[in-house]
Amino acid sequence: MRLDIDRDRLVELVRTQASFGATDDGGLHRLALSDADADARDWLVARLEAADLSVRVDAFGNVFGRREGADPDAAPVLLGSHLDSQPYGGIYDGALGVVAALEVCLTLNDDGVRTRRPIEVVNWTNEEGSRFQPTMQGSGVWAGEFDRDAQYERTDDDGVRVVDELDRIGYRGDHPAEPREPYDSYLELHIEQGPALETAGADVGVVTGIVGLSWGEVTLSGRSDHTGTTPMHLRADALVAAADVTTAIRRLPGAFGERTVATVGSLDVSPNSVNIVPEEVQFTWDVRAPADATVREATDRIEREVTAAATREGVAHEVEQFLTASSVAFPDRTVSTVATAADRLGYEALDLFSGAAHDASHVAGVCDAGMIFAVSDDGRSHTEDEHTSWDDCYSAANVLANAALDLAEPA
Amino acid sequence: MRLDIDRDRLVELVRTQASFGATDDGGLHRLALSDADADARDWLVARLEAADLSVRVDAFGNVFGRREGADPDAAPVLLGSHLDSQPYGGIYDGALGVVAALEVCLTLNDDGVRTRRPIEVVNWTNEEGSRFQPTMQGSGVWAGEFDRDAQYERTDDDGVRVVDELDRIGYRGDHPAEPREPYDSYLELHIEQGPALETAGADVGVVTGIVGLSWGEVTLSGRSDHTGTTPMHLRADALVAAADVTTAIRRLPGAFGERTVATVGSLDVSPNSVNIVPEEVQFTWDVRAPADATVREATDRIEREVTAAATREGVAHEVEQFLTASSVAFPDRTVSTVATAADRLGYEALDLFSGAAHDASHVAGVCDAGMIFAVSDDGRSHTEDEHTSWDDCYSAANVLANAALDLAEPA
Repeated sequence: MRLDIDRDRLVELVRTQASFGATDDGGLHRLALSDADADARDWLVARLEAADLSVRVDAFGNVFGRREGADPDAAPVLLGSHLDSQPYGGIYDGALGVVAALEVCLTLNDDGVRTRRPIEVVNWTNEEGSRFQPTMQGSGVWAGEFDRDAQYERTDDDGVRVVDELDRIGYRGDHPAEPREPYDSYLELHIEQGPALETAGADVGVVTGIVGLSWGEVTLSGRSDHTGTTPMHLRADALVAAADVTTAIRRLPGAFGERTVATVGSLDVSPNSVNIVPEEVQFTWDVRAPADATVREATDRIEREVTAAATREGVAHEVEQFLTASSVAFPDRTVSTVATAADRLGYEALDLFSGAAHDASHVAGVCDAGMIFAVSDDGRSHTEDEHTSWDDCYSAANVLANAALDLAEPA
Repeated sequence: MRLDIDRDRLVELVRTQASFGATDDGGLHRLALSDADADARDWLVARLEAADLSVRVDAFGNVFGRREGADPDAAPVLLGSHLDSQPYGGIYDGALGVVAALEVCLTLNDDGVRTRRPIEVVNWTNEEGSRFQPTMQGSGVWAGEFDRDAQYERTDDDGVRVVDELDRIGYRGDHPAEPREPYDSYLELHIEQGPALETAGADVGVVTGIVGLSWGEVTLSGRSDHTGTTPMHLRADALVAAADVTTAIRRLPGAFGERTVATVGSLDVSPNSVNIVPEEVQFTWDVRAPADATVREATDRIEREVTAAATREGVAHEVEQFLTASSVAFPDRTVSTVATAADRLGYEALDLFSGAAHDASHVAGVCDAGMIFAVSDDGRSHTEDEHTSWDDCYSAANVLANAALDLAEPA
């Protein structure tokens, strides 16, 4: 049995969700638990109910829509992603995976297909971590990685708490924010957010795992002196030391191979004046690699570079690794199911490792997880320019439908 | 004839001026044309009048107090500096030179000394350039370097214009903001703001000139990509290029000798997020050297480094040199007068070039100018920690008094 989703309906679903929080430039500004997020959730719930799915909301706002299976004892297959967006982000990141999961159920309904296992569609709360940190908050609570009550207390830049926003928009649900039964498997369709599929000319990506990562912050403290009157040899210039480390971090991946990436994304200088020697600099690192040992070794090297640069320039240094995530290798069962579905549909599929973390990272701790990547034009994401063609949305959603049917087993 | 200023009165003058805009930590927050600046000006005017000086205010807020000379046709000797401070700066920078000039007149009064030339005390408007750019604004307008009406229109961060603040605090005076007659000479006492005097164990500095400088801003424009999914070789990271240039600028002075300094003081990253490759970086350079040719050559090298780094990293670049100042060599007459006064008083004096620009830079275009430096403890300035001992204040003010008397000629 082969499913063929309704391409026009998928386009309509993507377009309609994109109207909630739409920006003037064709992007999406739909921060977690904002009014726009609430509107998108209300719309999703209505569409799930219209598809005869039974909807429940858990205590962290994760929304589930259940299509019952033939076997009342069978563990369900979970499909989904997230509806929240980056600030002025794109319309595909996350949302495509949620509406594709809904479209899978609509196609099963149209074709009158019963499955042995139940299928559930899920929208995870606050994947992006833009308004409230951390990222992947809802799936992390549900999977038991994060403490629910601690996450309730997280605040945005205005001091507003997660729990109060859940209450305000009516999405602190009655169901416990945890798996209410054993789950069989989870599939998440997501845009690649990188250039690998486009570069390879592939139709769809079969994700074999998710990189491990290390995020940290370095604080360098020197002395603010007058730029005109302080000889070079008497300075303790925090920015000079930070520049040395930035250059070293740029070179790090060369030692570890192509799939390792390292970035200084954020850097702040104080007092940040043309004629004052920089006293304090704070900057972040972001290192990712498929092997956890590589991430650890790269992080060690960064710390050694910080010590060396700070010593050379005579500045004090503090290093804080504030986030680590182990790499995830998806099990053969889900990976091969996705690969087989793509192959049966005649798509050119590329096996690849995800350089970005996803809700699937957390869910992989609960059940067999897998991911399908849709092509990202020019590799762009987290910007209004993010784009995936309708052909590529359709291909990926078709793979999701057929892989989900395999896992849920035609009854 | 040798003058000996009143040390206790000098201490009182320094302390009293420091009460207008005093910070909790013993510093001074007295931005140009603020309420605190107005209070300090009102106090100065009262003290000048109490010293029988005739006070006038020019159309740019520069305050003059005149002690008449015996010869009605003689060109006056001008003494002074500025009362405005850096944000949370120290109590000596600028203010010491103004109150020392007043103290010189009070000492002349006490000793009943008449001079052939008039002596004028001056407080220049907005030397620091912290609230309104550029620096040395009042002396620049007075000396004809800046156009008065254009400077009136300069605004602070809140959009408030200079001219409106002059009116608000009552310091847009009736006198033209220009030399109303030929001036004989100008002496400015200022703290060194560097470590040379303390390092040499000197009591006072004889300033032979002021460095030339070049200030500029570089904008590097790359592409904001996802840090996890974008391979290193496909990135255009503006911060990596900026780090390369920062390191190159740190090394520049090595090619030109000890008195050349080069700094990146300010650097801003956009979007400045841990997991987004930096798209745009703006940073400033500040290069100073005693020889203008060195400043030009160093600036050329910076521009070449920017081009090279931007090309390596695949980012676009723009370079704007927004301020240049030629170096100033003070004439032998004023320099030797200061050196002779220090010598006669038995002080250990060090000849040195100023690494900071001062109002004397502009006044040097109008008449013979010279400067006296007081010792800066630990070379610190533009900070609340700025400190000069009372002994060092006294020594420098005594040199000012005796050099001024030489220039003004006992009648």
